[in-house]
Amino acid sequence: MASLMAPSKHSPVEDAEALQRAVKGWGADEKAIIAILGHRNGTQRTQIRQAYYDLYQEDLIKRLESELSGDFERAMYRWILEPAEREALLANIALKNANMNYHVIVEISCVSSPDELFIVRRAYHNRYKRSMEEVVATNTTGHLRQLLVGLVSSFRYGGSEVNASLAQSEADILHEAIKNKNHNHEEVIRILTTRSKTQLVATFNCYRHDHGIAITKKLLDEGSDDFHKALRIAISCINDHKKYYEKVLRNAMETVGTDEDALTRVIVTRAEKDLEDIKKVYYKRNSVHLEHAVAKKTSGDYKKFLLTLMAKEE
Amino acid sequence: MASLMAPSKHSPVEDAEALQRAVKGWGADEKAIIAILGHRNGTQRTQIRQAYYDLYQEDLIKRLESELSGDFERAMYRWILEPAEREALLANIALKNANMNYHVIVEISCVSSPDELFIVRRAYHNRYKRSMEEVVATNTTGHLRQLLVGLVSSFRYGGSEVNASLAQSEADILHEAIKNKNHNHEEVIRILTTRSKTQLVATFNCYRHDHGIAITKKLLDEGSDDFHKALRIAISCINDHKKYYEKVLRNAMETVGTDEDALTRVIVTRAEKDLEDIKKVYYKRNSVHLEHAVAKKTSGDYKKFLLTLMAKEE
Repeated sequence: MASLMAPSKHSPVEDAEALQRAVKGWGADEKAIIAILGHRNGTQRTQIRQAYYDLYQEDLIKRLESELSGDFERAMYRWILEPAEREALLANIALKNANMNYHVIVEISCVSSPDELFIVRRAYHNRYKRSMEEVVATNTTGHLRQLLVGLVSSFRYGGSEVNASLAQSEADILHEAIKNKNHNHEEVIRILTTRSKTQLVATFNCYRHDHGIAITKKLLDEGSDDFHKALRIAISCINDHKKYYEKVLRNAMETVGTDEDALTRVIVTRAEKDLEDIKKVYYKRNSVHLEHAVAKKTSGDYKKFLLTLMAKEE
Repeated sequence: MASLMAPSKHSPVEDAEALQRAVKGWGADEKAIIAILGHRNGTQRTQIRQAYYDLYQEDLIKRLESELSGDFERAMYRWILEPAEREALLANIALKNANMNYHVIVEISCVSSPDELFIVRRAYHNRYKRSMEEVVATNTTGHLRQLLVGLVSSFRYGGSEVNASLAQSEADILHEAIKNKNHNHEEVIRILTTRSKTQLVATFNCYRHDHGIAITKKLLDEGSDDFHKALRIAISCINDHKKYYEKVLRNAMETVGTDEDALTRVIVTRAEKDLEDIKKVYYKRNSVHLEHAVAKKTSGDYKKFLLTLMAKEE
């Protein structure tokens, strides 16, 4: 369930006019901007961008970029984009990073549905005039490259059929591969990059049933290099992406200084999808409401905006 | 340019009725079937299938399958499908083959535009309840697997931009990889599976310019295992797929007994696209018209049908 509270009816033109009043003159009216855009869904935001352009011959995104600053600006910039555009942007930021943030790449590839991922790949083409896998492949080598390119390029079958004997045999392959430290990476990569998500969840369940430990936990003992990390993230995202996001949020706020990029990323990308569920998972794990944790770690307009997206006005 | 001659106006209902007359009773009227379906484009054929179903509550494809036989039936079955459905079918036949016909897989992956390939992958999901890459990966190992899965999963950037210095540096990488017999397969696979086609053509041109030999010819000296064969086919398809198809047709007819599967595949899949151009390439290479060569090697309704698709009635 989404956490975003958006009205079923709104006037894109009135919203655009109100936003124009909020950005004109000296200093923007951040409160007004949050009150509008923090309560509009993707379609509505796109209509507002269009109405704003029609009225003022100006790109609303660029205007907001120049009026706002810091974490608030970055969060608003990400929020106002359409989901696929935003994921393409996030992927590009991750790929430009000197120590490529491959976890964002894995996250986008494994949390998105097969069709969503394809739309993100297309948005990446449009925005950056090259393919996502091309950049991933250029910046990596060996097994990490094979895994990441495989995940990014995947178009998994989306049906709910499960082949139980295949789940068993591939759980065994994964077990053997992990047990023999000289990993049969090829087979692990094949299974993780090509099987349907439903099939993989069945395979991970077989693994846990047979060995009394989750495969991600077992992998933790086996190596902490980039390949193993990427593998664990991929499995977590496929297995239960809400639990995965809970952990990202927890880690982001446990860091000294708070990892605002991660905090923004999760809240902005999930607000319209399943942030309400992630809030529940967070509370169950931490006995603290996510909104309270976020409120403690953030401040100013950035804080106001995140809380609005979490349906918790101050 | 397509070779197919289809009327701009047709009545799906009248066509369906005429087809019903052609298949009812003892023995089908193959001539009538060819006269109709051999002159209808993809959209028109789909409309006819629908009209036939609405009129007779029967699947036209199944009916034709039961009425026709041999090479003619197989050609008609492939022809009547929508292009993406047909490629999915061809891929599946190739994958079911004991000695997987990976050249068909490479062909589909490298000749199709990035968007077309995606539609084929989706058609494969719908038809076979699994992904194409999943089956490819299960049936192969090592570098051949990496190459084939990479090609099948590719969603190359489709723009016409060329980075000349990148073309030069990657031509050098390919040259080094091929020269040192202990091939740097990883880099060859990366380049071939992720770069845009326009970029790759520039890279192949650099290679030929620097070394005075086409990269496919050079590869021919280096190995004749499946990996090298797949590599050569991929390069040929990306570089100039019309020349590639000319060769497939030539080989199909040079074989003792004729390779009808290959002959059908090329004529049926290209009739609506660029078979007219392929005919020209064939004539230039062989000083024989493709239609004459095909007429010599085939017979009966199969021959009539292929010639009709090539716009050469007997």
